[in-house]
Amino acid sequence: MPTLRLALCQVNPTVGDLSGNAALIREWTRRAADAGAQLVAFPEMMLTGYPVEDLVFRRSFVAASKAALERLAADLAADGLGDLPVLVGYLDADGPPQVSGDAEPGHGARNAAALLHGGGTVATYFKHHLPNYGVFDEDRYFVPGNMLTVVRIGGVDVALTICEDLWQAGGPFAAARQAGVGLVLNINGSPYELNKDDIRLPLVRRRAAEAGATIAYVNMIGGQDELVFEGDSMIVTADGTLLARAPQFVEHLLVHDVELPEATPRADDDAELADALRVVRRTVGSVPAAPAGPAVTGGVIEPVADEAEVWQALVLGLRDYVNKNRFPSVVLGLSGGIDSAVCAALAVDALGADRVVGVSMPSQHSSVHSREDAADLAKRTGLDYRIEPIQPMVDTFLANMSLSGVSVENLQARVRGVILMALSNQEGHLVLTTGNKSELAVGYSTLYGDSVGGFNPVKDVWKTLIWRLATWRNGDAARRGETAPIPENSIGKPPSAELSPGQLDSDTLPDYDVLDPILIGYVDGDLGRDGLVESGHDPAVVDRVLRMVDTAEYKRRQSAPGTKISMKAFGRDRRLPITNRWRENG
Amino acid sequence: MPTLRLALCQVNPTVGDLSGNAALIREWTRRAADAGAQLVAFPEMMLTGYPVEDLVFRRSFVAASKAALERLAADLAADGLGDLPVLVGYLDADGPPQVSGDAEPGHGARNAAALLHGGGTVATYFKHHLPNYGVFDEDRYFVPGNMLTVVRIGGVDVALTICEDLWQAGGPFAAARQAGVGLVLNINGSPYELNKDDIRLPLVRRRAAEAGATIAYVNMIGGQDELVFEGDSMIVTADGTLLARAPQFVEHLLVHDVELPEATPRADDDAELADALRVVRRTVGSVPAAPAGPAVTGGVIEPVADEAEVWQALVLGLRDYVNKNRFPSVVLGLSGGIDSAVCAALAVDALGADRVVGVSMPSQHSSVHSREDAADLAKRTGLDYRIEPIQPMVDTFLANMSLSGVSVENLQARVRGVILMALSNQEGHLVLTTGNKSELAVGYSTLYGDSVGGFNPVKDVWKTLIWRLATWRNGDAARRGETAPIPENSIGKPPSAELSPGQLDSDTLPDYDVLDPILIGYVDGDLGRDGLVESGHDPAVVDRVLRMVDTAEYKRRQSAPGTKISMKAFGRDRRLPITNRWRENG
Repeated sequence: MPTLRLALCQVNPTVGDLSGNAALIREWTRRAADAGAQLVAFPEMMLTGYPVEDLVFRRSFVAASKAALERLAADLAADGLGDLPVLVGYLDADGPPQVSGDAEPGHGARNAAALLHGGGTVATYFKHHLPNYGVFDEDRYFVPGNMLTVVRIGGVDVALTICEDLWQAGGPFAAARQAGVGLVLNINGSPYELNKDDIRLPLVRRRAAEAGATIAYVNMIGGQDELVFEGDSMIVTADGTLLARAPQFVEHLLVHDVELPEATPRADDDAELADALRVVRRTVGSVPAAPAGPAVTGGVIEPVADEAEVWQALVLGLRDYVNKNRFPSVVLGLSGGIDSAVCAALAVDALGADRVVGVSMPSQHSSVHSREDAADLAKRTGLDYRIEPIQPMVDTFLANMSLSGVSVENLQARVRGVILMALSNQEGHLVLTTGNKSELAVGYSTLYGDSVGGFNPVKDVWKTLIWRLATWRNGDAARRGETAPIPENSIGKPPSAELSPGQLDSDTLPDYDVLDPILIGYVDGDLGRDGLVESGHDPAVVDRVLRMVDTAEYKRRQSAPGTKISMKAFGRDRRLPITNRWRENG
Repeated sequence: MPTLRLALCQVNPTVGDLSGNAALIREWTRRAADAGAQLVAFPEMMLTGYPVEDLVFRRSFVAASKAALERLAADLAADGLGDLPVLVGYLDADGPPQVSGDAEPGHGARNAAALLHGGGTVATYFKHHLPNYGVFDEDRYFVPGNMLTVVRIGGVDVALTICEDLWQAGGPFAAARQAGVGLVLNINGSPYELNKDDIRLPLVRRRAAEAGATIAYVNMIGGQDELVFEGDSMIVTADGTLLARAPQFVEHLLVHDVELPEATPRADDDAELADALRVVRRTVGSVPAAPAGPAVTGGVIEPVADEAEVWQALVLGLRDYVNKNRFPSVVLGLSGGIDSAVCAALAVDALGADRVVGVSMPSQHSSVHSREDAADLAKRTGLDYRIEPIQPMVDTFLANMSLSGVSVENLQARVRGVILMALSNQEGHLVLTTGNKSELAVGYSTLYGDSVGGFNPVKDVWKTLIWRLATWRNGDAARRGETAPIPENSIGKPPSAELSPGQLDSDTLPDYDVLDPILIGYVDGDLGRDGLVESGHDPAVVDRVLRMVDTAEYKRRQSAPGTKISMKAFGRDRRLPITNRWRENG
């Protein structure tokens, strides 16, 4: 059996940064070549970044992707790497936009992979299964492929596939078995979800069995707006053996020597395979010989445990949002409470203490312990600590307007928002907002007050998980002999917004250990009222919580909807990444 | 040839309000019966409202829609209307959620229409073409139908279709010709777009020719978050004759006697028709006899001209957002400028002057003419006028923080935002934000300042169109002998944010008659930089404008993204209407 030295490049592209991503490919291909690789694979839409959303509809962007691919192939050859086959994800399109019936003009965009070799493209594959659920809208963007591409590389038949193709039975992997391949490359932009790593390995094993072939799975890492990609690249044989597995949340070159079956002569170009795919066969003339010496193994890194995994995901998501959008630093309010303390610790882990500004903004309702806890956090983490009392501004508003009750509570949060935004304008920091998912769900926050900010590191973290993360992070510090970043006081005390005398969250909300399970059932589980009551929750509490969730949608948006009168309103019509380096004018 | 008296009910449902929408159907069916109707049709997803977005994934909501349909059929019979066939759009689903491959659980939801008669459902149709472009995500929500439903009603074969089915050639309308029908009912939730009324009639004519049958097209009216539905219901014969056409933007009962071909005996239940549809045939036992007397005609209302049409769309969108979300009133800042003046006039037209509060918030940079123009507008429209000077609050911030330049400019806009939100909290008004589409495109606004608000009536209106609308509205008032609402000064003077001494928009932006055509090409037209330059725009100006648009995405959002770690983050994962009356607990 032939042996191929595979190099899976688990790297971090940036949406829209075609030249930067191409440079990354050249650099990592060089590293792979130096490690003796004979076949190299990069993630899904590596060249454009993923997901590019409505950038797909810009013909200039599609043209730039295709041009960048050609240039990359030539550059790799010029780098002396032309004999090394490199699989790269990119955005392709067939000719001009199509018009579908009398409706909207369609387009022929493809989520594509190209095998580069000898200064050009020797094979192309178009993603077959387009996910259109959850965060995915690929039916909006792409036309599905209907071919299985098989490339003979170093005497082995290799099928090319992309991401979702792996998640569906009976598609390209079943076709790959009929085509008799020895290896399936699967390139991914597969976003992180809690526990997804537990699902991924069994899935790859099932699909390897279906294909009767080894699968080499490569995933990107990095943050892209709300998505974070975790890597977890791996190689699994047809019998389910895990040969190698990369760590999560870091760039990694996974190099492994894989024994693969020798290809036999075939001429089934016209065969109709599973899912009505047809096979296209190509051959790569020659590949580099593997260097002499012992077989190279990539090693198997076990995924980390839950709290560690979430912490790493949040750190990476925050770091990339800040860096890819070129913010020098972040600023956040420090109340002495747990949410802002966890966000500050995440920010310091992501960016370093010298890029984090924490502002204590006490009012007459702020307790002594809150001020002390904020100062303690600052000391523990080493961040840039400021104090900006809000009472003078609050008093001036109150002297000029007749306000009472919740209006006065919200006023304090809004004055804090104005202070943070003023610091952002004056000094260039990105403002972090720190409301957790439980608050967001029930609308327990001040619109344009504590919700002000450009990024929220804990937006998808339930309050009870915030506490677990804090405890885990402090424990992790202890295990390393480092200072725990989060004051124990902030973890232990009852949560309060401190916007009126003696106020506690529990005055308004059920205790979080009652609230969170209801929210998790309703939001994450799509359980209805009856299902929640059947699960044992108090019907009166369920009714109260559901009413809060159902009426908080406007707060979760913040930005005002407005009547659409054109084909391209700024709203539902136009879906663009925020983190996006694409510029029409370079 | 038999004659059928058709009644097309162009009504205004509310998303999630199943009982309210059912009551509307009963009321309008009664009115149709009183007019002697023999066949009645309501819009797409009339019973649930449209679009319901991710509410589709709530099994409790699907179950409620199906239960409401059954109850409605029984109630119509109890109302003595059981012999009148009534076509109603609703949300259906086939059994439990499906699991598609190894990927996300799917679902069997259907965008459905039911023909109610005799206290039950005699025929069902599932939408065949699911739009998944622009504002539509129907591939995310629905499984397409694969049957053509033909019902024999009063001796005429009638095919049932839904919205997008009309926009695609070769689908159900082609199948309807093969099935030999005399009439196609097409029920719609078709959102307004400028000039869409010019496209719609030719489209209906093409499809009527394709079907070889008369088409009765009924569309809803009303606002739903960013969408506004305009009605424009119509009846067109196979030879393209426009028999009747309803007005835009108002509820309307369009009743018309239509001569239709007598159905002939057929038994093609198993025939395979166009687009692989199969035909299902049903018969309605009896229909009411049309009352004696002359034939009833619905009349043909011509669509109104552009500015009038946009004005009506904006008024309706605003009115329904306010009323369907149960706000008693609105509040907005009045700067004396054109944007806030147009918004105030729209609000007064939508809600009446007694539900509109206008607040002048002068600073040291506000000119005398601005204050006078704001007061003049208030006098002309009769709205509730307040003055809240911002200088004391601005001065307190400046005394407590070291701010300069743009930070000080933004501070003033943010103090105004705090004042408006405080009035909203204290008195219950919805805050209107008034930034036009040109500003939004280039990011010429203050995040959490003038962009604060729950609804923006002119979010999709380019600045040059704002001026045209103002001129048109004043002229319309003059034609009616009424007071023009908008001060001529506000229309004529050069635009300024008045945040620093002598500031003009033209200090920062190209003139709007240069800027808007570039923005329209780039945003609405998806033209690239080169295409814009080829169209004759100055390359340096194009580059400057495109860079502003490409970097303003974060301002258009306002709400902070945050790293997603679960299947149901509040962000891309979960897409819910804001205007939504559905409550799990009633």
